[in-house]
Amino acid sequence: MPDRTNRQFRLAARPAGLPKPTDWELTTESVPAPREGEVLIQVLYVSIDPAMRHWMNEGRSYTEPVQIGDVMRAGTVGCVIESRNRNFRVGDCVVGGQGVQLFAISSGRGLRKVDPALAPLPAYLGGLGVTGLTAFFGLLEVGRARAGDTVVVSAAAGAVGSVVGQLAKIGGARAVGIAGGRDKCAYLLDIGFDAAIDYKSENVEQALDEHCPHGIDVYFDNVGGDILDSALAQLARGARVVLCGAISQYNLTTAVRGPTNYLSLLFSRARMEGFVTSDYKERYEAAIQKLARWRAEGRLQLREDIVDGLEAFPETLLRLFRGENTGKLMLKVAEV
Amino acid sequence: MPDRTNRQFRLAARPAGLPKPTDWELTTESVPAPREGEVLIQVLYVSIDPAMRHWMNEGRSYTEPVQIGDVMRAGTVGCVIESRNRNFRVGDCVVGGQGVQLFAISSGRGLRKVDPALAPLPAYLGGLGVTGLTAFFGLLEVGRARAGDTVVVSAAAGAVGSVVGQLAKIGGARAVGIAGGRDKCAYLLDIGFDAAIDYKSENVEQALDEHCPHGIDVYFDNVGGDILDSALAQLARGARVVLCGAISQYNLTTAVRGPTNYLSLLFSRARMEGFVTSDYKERYEAAIQKLARWRAEGRLQLREDIVDGLEAFPETLLRLFRGENTGKLMLKVAEV
Repeated sequence: MPDRTNRQFRLAARPAGLPKPTDWELTTESVPAPREGEVLIQVLYVSIDPAMRHWMNEGRSYTEPVQIGDVMRAGTVGCVIESRNRNFRVGDCVVGGQGVQLFAISSGRGLRKVDPALAPLPAYLGGLGVTGLTAFFGLLEVGRARAGDTVVVSAAAGAVGSVVGQLAKIGGARAVGIAGGRDKCAYLLDIGFDAAIDYKSENVEQALDEHCPHGIDVYFDNVGGDILDSALAQLARGARVVLCGAISQYNLTTAVRGPTNYLSLLFSRARMEGFVTSDYKERYEAAIQKLARWRAEGRLQLREDIVDGLEAFPETLLRLFRGENTGKLMLKVAEV
Repeated sequence: MPDRTNRQFRLAARPAGLPKPTDWELTTESVPAPREGEVLIQVLYVSIDPAMRHWMNEGRSYTEPVQIGDVMRAGTVGCVIESRNRNFRVGDCVVGGQGVQLFAISSGRGLRKVDPALAPLPAYLGGLGVTGLTAFFGLLEVGRARAGDTVVVSAAAGAVGSVVGQLAKIGGARAVGIAGGRDKCAYLLDIGFDAAIDYKSENVEQALDEHCPHGIDVYFDNVGGDILDSALAQLARGARVVLCGAISQYNLTTAVRGPTNYLSLLFSRARMEGFVTSDYKERYEAAIQKLARWRAEGRLQLREDIVDGLEAFPETLLRLFRGENTGKLMLKVAEV
């Protein structure tokens, strides 16, 4: 019988700016047995995502904030180790939101079974998980990217961005990525982007002008701030700006900076639109089948950045905000 | 034979901030005779519009800038007084872009004949002209306003805004208007708005919260700035923000201020979209028929603010930017 001591990161305080070590409490407790209708899940991988910073704030967002004292919310992939729910058997692999902890009881709501034969488990938190689905629905549904379009994506070497660019290529569009540093830009060209712009060493607006001679048809924004403004200045007529996130703004203690060039939407008859991936839940399975097929065909390359151990959580989250990860960031919290 | 001396306001300098008297030159010249295929138009009314401020700037916009020395661009309604074009007869009333002058030669391109029996001529620069068409396509096509929606419009007592609110009501939506001053707010309630918010004496965000308990479904923005931010903070899920203009930003000599609350688009799965009315040209006639019918039925009240004399142009344009007009602002430049 495995060790049944649970360890959990709980929110101890709402951070101002970047989360500090004292914003977290690491707690230990015994694992309860599932009641009728419940399953016990051993968490294997914990997804580390920009949205976590939102969940730590009080107030209005697209979902409820994590309460002080609660286990930190996180996407997870795990394994059913006890079941009193007829829909799940011991050994089933499941994706869900079990949070930053080693074990979790679940009623089964919000759990999705995944097939470890179709792809390795970490892929279900990355390109075949919410990350890939965010790229898929954001680019194709909200952004309506079509063959021949010029698609620009920021944080392009990140988990979502790298999938956005590859999906653009699969669909017959041009893909231009913006990322920070020479290595990340080289990676973008490796996985098939047509052009890569290093915002740390290049003038982004000039580079966009050069690489997008007919303007930007779809701009997939993961960062906000100056890069969003540069993209707005280069929109083609009828462009779609997909708001996926604004990582440059998440940890600000000053006011968010609005996009100065927003009136370009007017001149370009363009739209800027936000979305939340979970709104497309009913279409997840069909999308995952497509993503898995492209992955198997070698047309969609997924990269994971896997850090060992639950204890690494606070520092790993900071790595994300410092832009230090290469590919989808996650914790491995149990031996698989 | 009438006086055939033309007088014209020409752009003398590109203004910084509000246009100064020295930014204009008033010129006099004789009126040429139309050549084969051309008509001579006597201008009767000149439309005064916020977009004029854009046209005076160099650089990128949705249309070409007016060049220094050119007659200032303006929408006009006039009368054909000589014709060498088989499509137009002397006496035809025509809407076009003849500019801030008394007479104009036209090839016929861009002219639309209007029926003075259907509505008085000034209406064709107002509710039955680009103003009304802007409200119509912006609210119904871009904003997709539907019965039961809560529609909020800024500069609501202005030419476009007052039509937006009335069209919202005709379509079965709730209409909430934001305007400056008690008189303008009283006018909004007079013409059927459900609520009016005086931004000069009320906290707009609180008032929106009160008057839009289920959030804003369509926000029709004519002003930008703080009011846009207040509306973004109150969006309902799936809301549409229609960017029609940003009069608060047009005369700034400092950088445009972007909407700080733009991330509300993300949380609310909302969109912000710009449009240019002339993109809908092929559907103008059908829309004008509808607008004229609603006007004839008394369901659409149009108000014009008509100033006498071409010479009043510079000062009248400033009245627009000071928010002093009540209804569609125009110059009457000839006896009708």
